[in-house]
Amino acid sequence: MLYLVVDILGTVAFAISGVLVAMEKKLDLFGVFIIAFVTAVGGGTLRDLLIGNTPVGWMQAPIYLFVILGTVIVAIFFVNQLKHFRKSLFLFDTIGIGLYTMVGIEKGISAELLPVMSIALGTITASFGGVIRDILCNEIPVIFRKEIYATVCILGGSFYFILIQFPVDDTLAYIAAILAIIIMRLVAVRFRISLPNIYKCRRL
Amino acid sequence: MLYLVVDILGTVAFAISGVLVAMEKKLDLFGVFIIAFVTAVGGGTLRDLLIGNTPVGWMQAPIYLFVILGTVIVAIFFVNQLKHFRKSLFLFDTIGIGLYTMVGIEKGISAELLPVMSIALGTITASFGGVIRDILCNEIPVIFRKEIYATVCILGGSFYFILIQFPVDDTLAYIAAILAIIIMRLVAVRFRISLPNIYKCRRL
Amino acid sequence: MLYLVVDILGTVAFAISGVLVAMEKKLDLFGVFIIAFVTAVGGGTLRDLLIGNTPVGWMQAPIYLFVILGTVIVAIFFVNQLKHFRKSLFLFDTIGIGLYTMVGIEKGISAELLPVMSIALGTITASFGGVIRDILCNEIPVIFRKEIYATVCILGGSFYFILIQFPVDDTLAYIAAILAIIIMRLVAVRFRISLPNIYKCRRL
Repeated sequence: MLYLVVDILGTVAFAISGVLVAMEKKLDLFGVFIIAFVTAVGGGTLRDLLIGNTPVGWMQAPIYLFVILGTVIVAIFFVNQLKHFRKSLFLFDTIGIGLYTMVGIEKGISAELLPVMSIALGTITASFGGVIRDILCNEIPVIFRKEIYATVCILGGSFYFILIQFPVDDTLAYIAAILAIIIMRLVAVRFRISLPNIYKCRRL
Repeated sequence: MLYLVVDILGTVAFAISGVLVAMEKKLDLFGVFIIAFVTAVGGGTLRDLLIGNTPVGWMQAPIYLFVILGTVIVAIFFVNQLKHFRKSLFLFDTIGIGLYTMVGIEKGISAELLPVMSIALGTITASFGGVIRDILCNEIPVIFRKEIYATVCILGGSFYFILIQFPVDDTLAYIAAILAIIIMRLVAVRFRISLPNIYKCRRL
Repeated sequence: MLYLVVDILGTVAFAISGVLVAMEKKLDLFGVFIIAFVTAVGGGTLRDLLIGNTPVGWMQAPIYLFVILGTVIVAIFFVNQLKHFRKSLFLFDTIGIGLYTMVGIEKGISAELLPVMSIALGTITASFGGVIRDILCNEIPVIFRKEIYATVCILGGSFYFILIQFPVDDTLAYIAAILAIIIMRLVAVRFRISLPNIYKCRRL
């Protein structure tokens, strides 16, 4: 139940980030919906394709389609009010990243992938919706340019695989990893921590 | 037989639209061919990937490859004459959209998807070749910006699922839905009907 | 063993080409790594998806991930020295193209595709990593614009299918086709051979 609530909140936050990018590009109603949709389900879709899990997830669970449709309609009407919810949206987004990373990792484990590949799969799940969004909007993906985002997924996923080496309950490790991702992202954004700048620090 | 003729006409029209976009971008011969190819088969390929129908369709039916290759060669030689056939090409294109939407819907039904997901699959089949074309040519997809196109697929697909609730012959419903899509698109383009402009009508 | 060495050299050369494009776009460390990764494994991934060979190759062989990671780190540190190795890199790249074309063709034959489709699959394997690299970096793919590249894969693949009509040892035909691709590319680049310019030579 909690799982479903978190999943829906993450879907809403991802979809809204799609609406905002699409409206900045002046897309029409259909375009805004598609961008919101791929932002929300694109990462999971790519994950399912890579491991051969077809028909892909969203095709078998219509709830996502309807949640995203509802989100788009509300977001378009209240786009100017959205800025008042910036902090809540950022929080939902961050919670979504944590959850989707672990959902992807679980799918990787089910597909008998190595830990390092499961972590890659979790990172793809959490972050490639935004990559596809940016590509469709003709932008270089933002997570390739500045945000600490995928790095946090990789660290959180690694933390999970370290935890389960110990006699820790699996559900507990799962939740601890999600919390670790959320906290790392909040801290990184709060203190403007970013990846080392390879254009300054490299040897010339 | 009629089915094959319609399919080939649609493929030719889609491929030519690819040639025109690619030549505007001054791509070379190989680039023009690839863009024509993805425009014609990209939607069906994405559909097949999403439902796990592999090897994807065009790999098992070489006729598409050869039809597209022939179309590209003729289109490059006669590119300046193509404008005289603008109306015929638009008609073939529209017929193609109608057919491909229903082909996608049938595949969705075979994969036991819900009606709403089958409609999504049909719309993807008919419209995502153009999306991939535009992405490869570094443009924001045109169907996200102005054309009534996917909307017509969604309406036509919905019409099909309404029809088959009644004691209607399935083939008849299939053809009626294709005709509905064709007519709706012709009317929409003729009377410049478009989606409501979300940038004007939304509450501020 | 030789196979593995050639594969690794090709992976390194493809990854470095990704690093160079990504750094020109001023991507961050994560972005540079992802671009290097998709350049190196993107073609094979698309191939595996199209024929339903999942989980895709790189997920089952972590060596690629680690080779690419190592390549990225070294390449970032020594980016200014890379120009001294331009010729070696071009050679590795060309060897990679030859090998990957034939790897793709073999997978096509295993999937019982027609020769023409196997050649298409080989060409995709060798060349679509660069296509995805350019799309993610918001450029029209370079192989659609100027380089003789895919054409050489197509010719080499055709050569292989011609050879195996004769009583030639299969491994020999395989190696001969790889060498043919390498030689054709070296000759094409050396003598600046390119596809016919369709913008000049077409009838007006």
